[in-house]
Amino acid sequence: MKSMPSILSAPKKETVPDWNRWYAARAGRLRSSAIRELLKVISQPGMISFAGGMPAPESFPLSAFREACEKVLAREGPAALQYSATEGYGPLREFVAGSLRTKGIPCQVENVLMTSGSQQALDLIGKVFVDGSRPACVERPTYLGALQAWDSYAAEYITVPLDDEGIVLEGVPELLERSRPRFMYVLPNFHNPAGVSLSLARRRRLVEILASAECFLLEDDPYAELCFEGGMLPPLASLMPERTLYLGTFSKILAPGIRLGYVAGPQEVIRKLVQAKQGVDLHTSTFDQMVACEVGRMGILPAHIGTVRDIYRERCAAMLTAMESHFPDAVRRTRPKGGLFLWATLPEPLDSVELLSQAIAAGVAYVPGPSFYPPGMDEARRHLRLNFSYCGPERIEEGIRRLGAVFTRAMQ
Amino acid sequence: MKSMPSILSAPKKETVPDWNRWYAARAGRLRSSAIRELLKVISQPGMISFAGGMPAPESFPLSAFREACEKVLAREGPAALQYSATEGYGPLREFVAGSLRTKGIPCQVENVLMTSGSQQALDLIGKVFVDGSRPACVERPTYLGALQAWDSYAAEYITVPLDDEGIVLEGVPELLERSRPRFMYVLPNFHNPAGVSLSLARRRRLVEILASAECFLLEDDPYAELCFEGGMLPPLASLMPERTLYLGTFSKILAPGIRLGYVAGPQEVIRKLVQAKQGVDLHTSTFDQMVACEVGRMGILPAHIGTVRDIYRERCAAMLTAMESHFPDAVRRTRPKGGLFLWATLPEPLDSVELLSQAIAAGVAYVPGPSFYPPGMDEARRHLRLNFSYCGPERIEEGIRRLGAVFTRAMQ
Repeated sequence: MKSMPSILSAPKKETVPDWNRWYAARAGRLRSSAIRELLKVISQPGMISFAGGMPAPESFPLSAFREACEKVLAREGPAALQYSATEGYGPLREFVAGSLRTKGIPCQVENVLMTSGSQQALDLIGKVFVDGSRPACVERPTYLGALQAWDSYAAEYITVPLDDEGIVLEGVPELLERSRPRFMYVLPNFHNPAGVSLSLARRRRLVEILASAECFLLEDDPYAELCFEGGMLPPLASLMPERTLYLGTFSKILAPGIRLGYVAGPQEVIRKLVQAKQGVDLHTSTFDQMVACEVGRMGILPAHIGTVRDIYRERCAAMLTAMESHFPDAVRRTRPKGGLFLWATLPEPLDSVELLSQAIAAGVAYVPGPSFYPPGMDEARRHLRLNFSYCGPERIEEGIRRLGAVFTRAMQ
Repeated sequence: MKSMPSILSAPKKETVPDWNRWYAARAGRLRSSAIRELLKVISQPGMISFAGGMPAPESFPLSAFREACEKVLAREGPAALQYSATEGYGPLREFVAGSLRTKGIPCQVENVLMTSGSQQALDLIGKVFVDGSRPACVERPTYLGALQAWDSYAAEYITVPLDDEGIVLEGVPELLERSRPRFMYVLPNFHNPAGVSLSLARRRRLVEILASAECFLLEDDPYAELCFEGGMLPPLASLMPERTLYLGTFSKILAPGIRLGYVAGPQEVIRKLVQAKQGVDLHTSTFDQMVACEVGRMGILPAHIGTVRDIYRERCAAMLTAMESHFPDAVRRTRPKGGLFLWATLPEPLDSVELLSQAIAAGVAYVPGPSFYPPGMDEARRHLRLNFSYCGPERIEEGIRRLGAVFTRAMQ
């Protein structure tokens, strides 16, 4: 391209350049997580936050973690701080494979890739499977981190609604046939944000539908162990392993700050995801993987998970009870049997986005619905997500009282 | 889209599906790192590997690291294992900003984003700045991890050659004018793979050129501290901070296994990169960041870096001396004054890719040139990269002897 210098077209050379002109087109689709931005506002003293998704910090097994750090450094020495395989630390992959087998998922070490949190698994899946040429099929609502990861890969979405038994399957075969998504993304247990679980009958039917569809299943299962009422249902990956990628994490059963998740699936897909991960961060922290593995081998996780379940059961009950007292009857809410989240639905014409500033003024925070939907869906603004894992029961009661007052006032 | 069922077009329903049909187009550009693949072959006993880029494990400050783990867990408690800010751990960002200021780079905490290794900074920069509409300008050769990260964002490249004083600047203003890259990617100190450094005169000239060009500078500086001969030269970011993103890492001054790097630059760009990182892994390991910060505050890093420098100086000298004895004179090599790598150039018609299997058969490994070039550049096959940081001097002598025999035989 020849340049034709003239007074009019001569570029102005600033000292401080405008970086916007150098952004790739996709940078415009990067949206800041509503939650992460909210976290800044709500760190004010006195604020009661139901907005985050943080596990109860008092549950973290600190002393086991400390012991594991010592053991790892003593036994592994410099290897604990050296570069390691992209696939992950072998013994930790073994540990994960073993725990998936106990859930009925056929899994060997070759089927497991360790990731830097489950969020990274979503990013890698975006890199390998998402572009504008075929859509992703997601639940409505769905996990906001998945939308955030895939938006940057030019994702298009089709959506399927949820009810109290999870994803609604009527019309799904026709939708898949018509829209040709590459995969269907499902959170079957204690859904984030909806707080519902997929019933056994629907799990069976979903697998039947997908067996003759032109897509695979992406099963995101961070909360399976956090079931405080009723038993565990079989993972979809146990019913259809050859066509499922299964995502799990140590964030909810150990601690989230060390960023350890994994994806399990057919070996050829794991190999492709490994190639993607090489360019993304080479590998996940060697030390954190070894320490998590050591904690796992100590055998303390089952007891620890029991403790976590007890805490969350109590807090979920406290939230539901407080809602009985303080929420207008017209505000519907789900009744989770596990996990960290509860989903509330406001009566028309209330709007969860508009009401947020009033809630924050009253000293309580939540995440409004639109974060959990692809853009442009009006129904989103009637919903909101409430986290019950982080605050103790007294603060939950007080926060729900404040929120109830905001809703009641808005309905007058 | 209506489907017209017929015997010919009826889709075959397999039990084990072919996942290839679900990959996004970009998945085809994901290439496995030659080094990571090599690492598998070369783990055989007896093999002497100059292929990796691993720091000397005997240099890791293990006892300081152990002490830091204890202190962090005692002082921070559950916060060390909890979710934390995407931007990074505040005190560690302060530590980084302070160390950049001592290098002459104007930097506050708001200018720093902590990343999961420097590799993640390259991926985030790819996400925000790379697409097929405008090229990236890279050195020839360049860091293979950058190519790997950006290939997945549909990168196009233009290249500028290196000589013993670093990037050759003749013709660069015209190239930038003509090809309109969004940024120029430069490794000014102890280049990986080339082992050369950008001279002071050329640093000044490069900044002059870029000040009136329509692109920014991406300065990748992982090895600055590892200078074992001569002094440090000013970073390009100190000469042109408003137009530079600066990448650094703890991998070479502390340990690589904990995956800690950072990017420093104008605040508005850091904010955009933070948005990208939210979708990629939420944040880097809280615990690893706190421990690295604790080690940094102990004040042991300067002495530790001194030890590392002494080790690498000795090993680099051992490699160059062994080359005097064992390499044919026609094999040229760079003489690094720091870093981890040395670059060798074979005489025509020798081919580093073809010779690799003979080298491995002789019990020695290296990385052939093409990993460090965009595809399709013939000159690449005359070069190879040799790492001198990992093996001790005796193994270096023996490995170079083996490699010299392979080259000598090939030239006969």
